[in-house]
Amino acid sequence: MQQVNIGMLGGGTVGSGVYHAWKHNGRVMAARLGVKIRFCKIAVKSFDEPRPYPIPAPLLTTDWQAVVNDPQVQIVIELVGGTGIARTMVLAALRQGKTVVTANKALLSACGPELFAAAARTGANLYYEASVCGGIPIIKCLREGLVANQFPAIYGIVNGTCNYILSRMQQEGADFAEVLADAQKQGYAETPPDLDIEGKDAQHKTGILASLAHGFWVPADRIHTEGIRNVSQIDMRFANKLGYTIKLLGIAKRLSDRKGGVQVSVQPTLIPHSHVLASVNGVFNACFVRGDVVGDTLFYGRGAGKDATASAVLSDVADAALDLKLGTHLRVPPFNAHARSGRIRPIAEIISRYYLRLSAVDQPGVLAKIAAILARAKIGIASVIQPEGHPGNFVPLILMTHDASHAAMHRALLQITRLPVITGKPAVFRVENFE
Amino acid sequence: MQQVNIGMLGGGTVGSGVYHAWKHNGRVMAARLGVKIRFCKIAVKSFDEPRPYPIPAPLLTTDWQAVVNDPQVQIVIELVGGTGIARTMVLAALRQGKTVVTANKALLSACGPELFAAAARTGANLYYEASVCGGIPIIKCLREGLVANQFPAIYGIVNGTCNYILSRMQQEGADFAEVLADAQKQGYAETPPDLDIEGKDAQHKTGILASLAHGFWVPADRIHTEGIRNVSQIDMRFANKLGYTIKLLGIAKRLSDRKGGVQVSVQPTLIPHSHVLASVNGVFNACFVRGDVVGDTLFYGRGAGKDATASAVLSDVADAALDLKLGTHLRVPPFNAHARSGRIRPIAEIISRYYLRLSAVDQPGVLAKIAAILARAKIGIASVIQPEGHPGNFVPLILMTHDASHAAMHRALLQITRLPVITGKPAVFRVENFE
Repeated sequence: MQQVNIGMLGGGTVGSGVYHAWKHNGRVMAARLGVKIRFCKIAVKSFDEPRPYPIPAPLLTTDWQAVVNDPQVQIVIELVGGTGIARTMVLAALRQGKTVVTANKALLSACGPELFAAAARTGANLYYEASVCGGIPIIKCLREGLVANQFPAIYGIVNGTCNYILSRMQQEGADFAEVLADAQKQGYAETPPDLDIEGKDAQHKTGILASLAHGFWVPADRIHTEGIRNVSQIDMRFANKLGYTIKLLGIAKRLSDRKGGVQVSVQPTLIPHSHVLASVNGVFNACFVRGDVVGDTLFYGRGAGKDATASAVLSDVADAALDLKLGTHLRVPPFNAHARSGRIRPIAEIISRYYLRLSAVDQPGVLAKIAAILARAKIGIASVIQPEGHPGNFVPLILMTHDASHAAMHRALLQITRLPVITGKPAVFRVENFE
Repeated sequence: MQQVNIGMLGGGTVGSGVYHAWKHNGRVMAARLGVKIRFCKIAVKSFDEPRPYPIPAPLLTTDWQAVVNDPQVQIVIELVGGTGIARTMVLAALRQGKTVVTANKALLSACGPELFAAAARTGANLYYEASVCGGIPIIKCLREGLVANQFPAIYGIVNGTCNYILSRMQQEGADFAEVLADAQKQGYAETPPDLDIEGKDAQHKTGILASLAHGFWVPADRIHTEGIRNVSQIDMRFANKLGYTIKLLGIAKRLSDRKGGVQVSVQPTLIPHSHVLASVNGVFNACFVRGDVVGDTLFYGRGAGKDATASAVLSDVADAALDLKLGTHLRVPPFNAHARSGRIRPIAEIISRYYLRLSAVDQPGVLAKIAAILARAKIGIASVIQPEGHPGNFVPLILMTHDASHAAMHRALLQITRLPVITGKPAVFRVENFE
């Protein structure tokens, strides 16, 4: 049986997970693929760094260049992460015409076009299934399984840490800070947690999904991104009463108004309890994909962790191995900019329903003042909750609006917060009904 | 740009759906694939059969052989259905070395090995993504996206008609017969509905999934199959009280006991409300796949209908077109019997928890008699409900058991129904907790 030789950069948690999964299922994979995968060299930071699964010492080296430059190595797996040395490594491998498999969303997000260009120059391929939604084969599904579709809407729960925190807030009634601290203690959140909590990681992944779906590269800085720091327990509770839960969604939506273009954003969003995405809890990820032919689909699984990531990395290795076996190394190129034109619409123009929570003085006429401002902004009110029996001088006031542009909503909100009867910072979140 | 020529057999609902989707997205597909797909001939039953989308008259013929034998035609799409003429058509195309794309689960189930052998003889390929779970790319996910996994368990809601009926029973409190009649009126169920309701269609699909997952062909007659005729509103209600809903599941489960082997069955099953499969309602399908590396995943979407099926058919056409473009027509062969041995365990040996509903005379000592029979059979009782205030002389008695073999359960049940205090037919269903 033909054999392909793998070099791996990174032998920590994920790297040892990949090696372990291959040890376990490499024989089945070979039987399925008709080609044998062999790990021949693995570069690590240090020989004695702790790893959850062992890797035989003779495979290890601390010299990454020895891996990339080894003439035996045909496929390079990059699991180093980040945008520094990992970029150098990936470019070095691609320049030699070697296929690269990576799980590095930050690198793709920051340097995608540079990497694709480097790959194109040598005819090398670059695979990145593990970069979005961990073990869920969402990249393959978008590019191959749903290739006959255009994508009016994609909504992804793409960051496991945020989803874990929001799920626990929802289920336990606990506060954000409390759950975050516990998540850090348990290893579900990093310290500092900013990359996840501020939505940056979700931004990287949403950009990759949007780029693949719409056929033009979506740079990270064009993606309006809000994290989950402002989601408080009180909002979780009111959302719940209204029949919603709050999830951090990566959104890529084709706009059907006169101007067209695509909305790409990462935003905490109220979604109805009855929607399948609402039942995606804990560290799980899911991607809700609406195809113009297939209709609504959902892909669900573990978004991170050494084993789920290993499954995705090895599926890329399998594709790359088939490419090598059959001499078709660009069957599915790393990125196909097939759209003749693509445009990201500024967030100001994006239309949505909104959830609004204000803290108001408990006196007559307050609601009238707020309603007047919204009316002038042409923002319809769908429902209002003003809970009875709230202690103190201030009462929470919750409004659900009809469709409004982000700009109109935030202009109106500014006027509302300037009212002397309003105190504190208002909470405002998108509402998505998946219509 | 290179071009591949398609001949299609069947131009009714699904056929016209495929043609329509291609008209709509063929240009995008070509841009994505770097190869142009062209429909050159479509065989129909009659020129004036009603079709939801129009097909240009010059493409139509009533002579299917003219399509298969057309030297231009490289890929043949079979959408005729059934195991009669469709078999002849598919074999004819494969014998000529033409790639076949089919949505025909009945044919695959009945003649899979014959078709695969015919394909192997000429080196032709056979694709069948649309045969299971409609628009969900589950075949591709199992064979490629999750290729690094073995599959301890797969649970599929694979029949939209059954799921539609069960969902409405659950949501509306309506009876089976009532919902079925309405489903037939609305076109969600066929007349007669037996292929769906008796679980045959689910059996075909479960067999295909199990074969792909476990690497040996699972013939339909080895799949223990129960339909949904015995699911009554009263069971739906009691299940609900216990925290469960009832779904028709296609099951393919690797057994970890000493004897090993695989359970493949189709059975109405109680599943916990909190499980993602419980929120799969209406005509939607979903496949819950547990991979030994990736963990738990779920794939959800429309299981039938002209558009969802078109999406799957065209994704196969895309793969076949890439194969032709690159000269790699057996990159992923139609079926890879990679398991060195495979064994279906008889249903009698399958262990499960059970839900049991009996109708008992309302007198002291009844429960003691039942409990004694179960104790002798070594079947533990997990919980009992005997609802108060039931009119008449008979009371329903609901038992949830611990693990028991199918044989032990049904032996005990036979003894129980022979008790003079028990009347009518008992209801017995599997309970699945996905542990």
